[in-house]
Amino acid sequence: MQGIGQKLIASLLTQDGPSGGVEDVLAWIRRRNEEVSVKVTPVPFRDLKEWSFHPLTGNLCHKTGKFFSIEGIRVVVDDGARREWEQPIINQPEVGFLGILTKIIDGTLCFLMQAKIEPGNLNHVQLSPTLQATRSNYTQVHQGRKPLYLEFFHNAQSSTILLDQLQSEQGSRFLRKRNRNIVLLTDENVAVNEDYRWLTLGQIKALMNYDNVVNMDTRTVISGLSFRQFLVALSDTAYDRFMDLHGVGAGGLAMFDSELARVGVNTIDEILHWLSSLKSRYELLVDRIPLHAVDEWQVTQDEIVRPDRQYFRVLGAEVFIENREVRSWGQPLVEPMQEGICAFIIKKMSGVFHFLVQAKIECGNFDVVEMAPTVQCLTGRYQGAGSVQPPFLNYVLNASGDQILFDTKQSEEGGRFYREQNRNLVVEAGDDFPDQVPENFCWLTLGQLKEFLRFNNYLNIQARSLIAALKFG
Amino acid sequence: MQGIGQKLIASLLTQDGPSGGVEDVLAWIRRRNEEVSVKVTPVPFRDLKEWSFHPLTGNLCHKTGKFFSIEGIRVVVDDGARREWEQPIINQPEVGFLGILTKIIDGTLCFLMQAKIEPGNLNHVQLSPTLQATRSNYTQVHQGRKPLYLEFFHNAQSSTILLDQLQSEQGSRFLRKRNRNIVLLTDENVAVNEDYRWLTLGQIKALMNYDNVVNMDTRTVISGLSFRQFLVALSDTAYDRFMDLHGVGAGGLAMFDSELARVGVNTIDEILHWLSSLKSRYELLVDRIPLHAVDEWQVTQDEIVRPDRQYFRVLGAEVFIENREVRSWGQPLVEPMQEGICAFIIKKMSGVFHFLVQAKIECGNFDVVEMAPTVQCLTGRYQGAGSVQPPFLNYVLNASGDQILFDTKQSEEGGRFYREQNRNLVVEAGDDFPDQVPENFCWLTLGQLKEFLRFNNYLNIQARSLIAALKFG
Repeated sequence: MQGIGQKLIASLLTQDGPSGGVEDVLAWIRRRNEEVSVKVTPVPFRDLKEWSFHPLTGNLCHKTGKFFSIEGIRVVVDDGARREWEQPIINQPEVGFLGILTKIIDGTLCFLMQAKIEPGNLNHVQLSPTLQATRSNYTQVHQGRKPLYLEFFHNAQSSTILLDQLQSEQGSRFLRKRNRNIVLLTDENVAVNEDYRWLTLGQIKALMNYDNVVNMDTRTVISGLSFRQFLVALSDTAYDRFMDLHGVGAGGLAMFDSELARVGVNTIDEILHWLSSLKSRYELLVDRIPLHAVDEWQVTQDEIVRPDRQYFRVLGAEVFIENREVRSWGQPLVEPMQEGICAFIIKKMSGVFHFLVQAKIECGNFDVVEMAPTVQCLTGRYQGAGSVQPPFLNYVLNASGDQILFDTKQSEEGGRFYREQNRNLVVEAGDDFPDQVPENFCWLTLGQLKEFLRFNNYLNIQARSLIAALKFG
Repeated sequence: MQGIGQKLIASLLTQDGPSGGVEDVLAWIRRRNEEVSVKVTPVPFRDLKEWSFHPLTGNLCHKTGKFFSIEGIRVVVDDGARREWEQPIINQPEVGFLGILTKIIDGTLCFLMQAKIEPGNLNHVQLSPTLQATRSNYTQVHQGRKPLYLEFFHNAQSSTILLDQLQSEQGSRFLRKRNRNIVLLTDENVAVNEDYRWLTLGQIKALMNYDNVVNMDTRTVISGLSFRQFLVALSDTAYDRFMDLHGVGAGGLAMFDSELARVGVNTIDEILHWLSSLKSRYELLVDRIPLHAVDEWQVTQDEIVRPDRQYFRVLGAEVFIENREVRSWGQPLVEPMQEGICAFIIKKMSGVFHFLVQAKIECGNFDVVEMAPTVQCLTGRYQGAGSVQPPFLNYVLNASGDQILFDTKQSEEGGRFYREQNRNLVVEAGDDFPDQVPENFCWLTLGQLKEFLRFNNYLNIQARSLIAALKFG
């Protein structure tokens, strides 16, 4: 197990593996995109096989009562300003698996990744975890084929567990939904299906430089991997030699330094104090209500939508996909009405990169606030759109080219969201950027973010997506 | 701040302070008990001033809509066995303060503790934190006097924060209720009111050797204090000298060893894996329902109760207390129908004390399971009573005298619960006790328990109460 820390960092710093280089992997994903037939057709709700509006509540449900449903919530938020509203929300109380199987192949730690189609994906195929399954999937409510590689995750005890965390999904769209993010190391033989390839961690990260190639589920799982364990044990000389050997440049070294820092301008205890203070002062009250009772939204034959067509709409879709466990089905999908932006501002303080984290209330949050990127004005942000400009948005939008460490469009989960992409940015602020920030913001090192990531429900999915994109090379 | 770690441990190991010895403190509490007039009279609900049953829901509410209400919930639990039931529950969505002010007095770190009366207390006065206030209290909904010392906690920034955690209350009685547990160190002048005394941490712990003297709120706050920071920095020689100087015996040394151990027979990552696995497989679905719709419970003129009088009942009480912010009021109280037992089994493994922790589902839990004592069969445990014997209960009940490290009766919070006390036990198991335990049990060192305590909602209030009682002397 000790050696795994080193293997993990070597994999992070390697862009060649058993499946070739990054370009080869990209070509494979594009080829799968062409080879597999996909058709997603919006249909009236009454034509959605196996879905219907519940006669009493008006909730949109599957006939088994499983999978998920579209329900209503009434929300009261008070973070200094009090707002109340009602909205539809996805209720999916099951915890699903997002699992990646890893194995050492010719000395390199490789991740078994899937070229997976989801109905809502912009480009149909995206790179997914080995296993991406709701409990309904793996208990086979839909009578389809059993998900591949499920047995490795059901018998996790016989593998080495590199990571096992419960993490949240989009708090503005899901009611307290969580997934089990898990990474296993196996030394058993693994038969590689045609939709799967062994990739290095460096390759997965490199693929995030392209728009909408690495899916949200992959991003959340790899965000939790910590590179600290092996590195902290090295002497300064051994550390420098290791970084030299792997050709890590100044940018990568700065990111490793931040990952290794457990104490920054704030200690973990000070950050816990900051969170406790906000969680006890802010209020988030969420009551489930019948969908038909949701104020300001209407259910038509084709969509659940506001008359002003703001925020998002729910539509019905007939899906035909060739390489899935089930080849055709109908389901609701949530379509955003505009794109969003998620951005971390980072700044060197006392010589170490600090991330400017926002404590953000979202209506589906498990625990009032979660740590969010500096700027997150998602389409799903229900209130406030069009009114006050979020803090630091202008700074991010006006950042110069040399400040921008990362800037691509990344998709939300295509199993629920219809062609939703958001701009993901990491911006390095200069010395002129103020150290003092509003009360709901706090500076954390990457090592501190990873420490909070180990425990449940501290970092939201947008923050995790950006952390997954950070480059160490 | 660095010096505070040493002061904290010195306070832990000191049973004499500015208020005399433990006997003096006990005499003071008993005297306050006699000096202050208390009358609690059960009355029919219709005679409860300012409380009434909501005409639509039947919920028992205060006229302001503040404080708390008695509502209903429908519960589905699946931890291998599926159970469904309905029950009344206390809904109090506010986060309250449980705050202790500390100060160095003549070189000793002292805790400002209150001899406080609560209507439900068995012996009226118990030792409470400096500040024990719901948000309604401190925003003065009831138009009473402002709680003493509130200003220190409102302006926490100007003090040193020793601890600031959000922690849960009884999961079988409260719907996701949490309090902010906070300990501040001040160097300002503090006027000591007649109901308050400066005590050492050792004195507070010594008072837990008596039945029902230290209230639940004090126990949960002090449970979070960590003694690690100062001790880990010591050389072996300095460590031995420090312990010698303070006269720490073999029992205390063993407890410190366990507190210092961050790795035990399981690592933190393995414990997180254990929790993620259970949280994703177990199910806890809780829906709020109107109180009048709760199955198997009836609302009479005098009580909310099951016909079989099991579990608990809710009654109305007229309260007259002389030294409170408000001198008389009416409120509902929850009375248990039987006493309960909370016990930790601890065992030396690889030479270090490990605590046998149970992952327990309770209906009001924030996050499916919390870590509970080895045995917790509270009166409030709704289902299963009278049926299957909980694991390890017999072992605890049959423990011999030399195995028992702690055995007293401790009260639940007297602001909500009427004369509820539970037997608190810590039992040391011998080598014959199996290392292998059922899937919902896990061995943790005290240091690991304290690490989880820093983060929200990992240890339930019963586990924290027992941790507060551990002796280091």
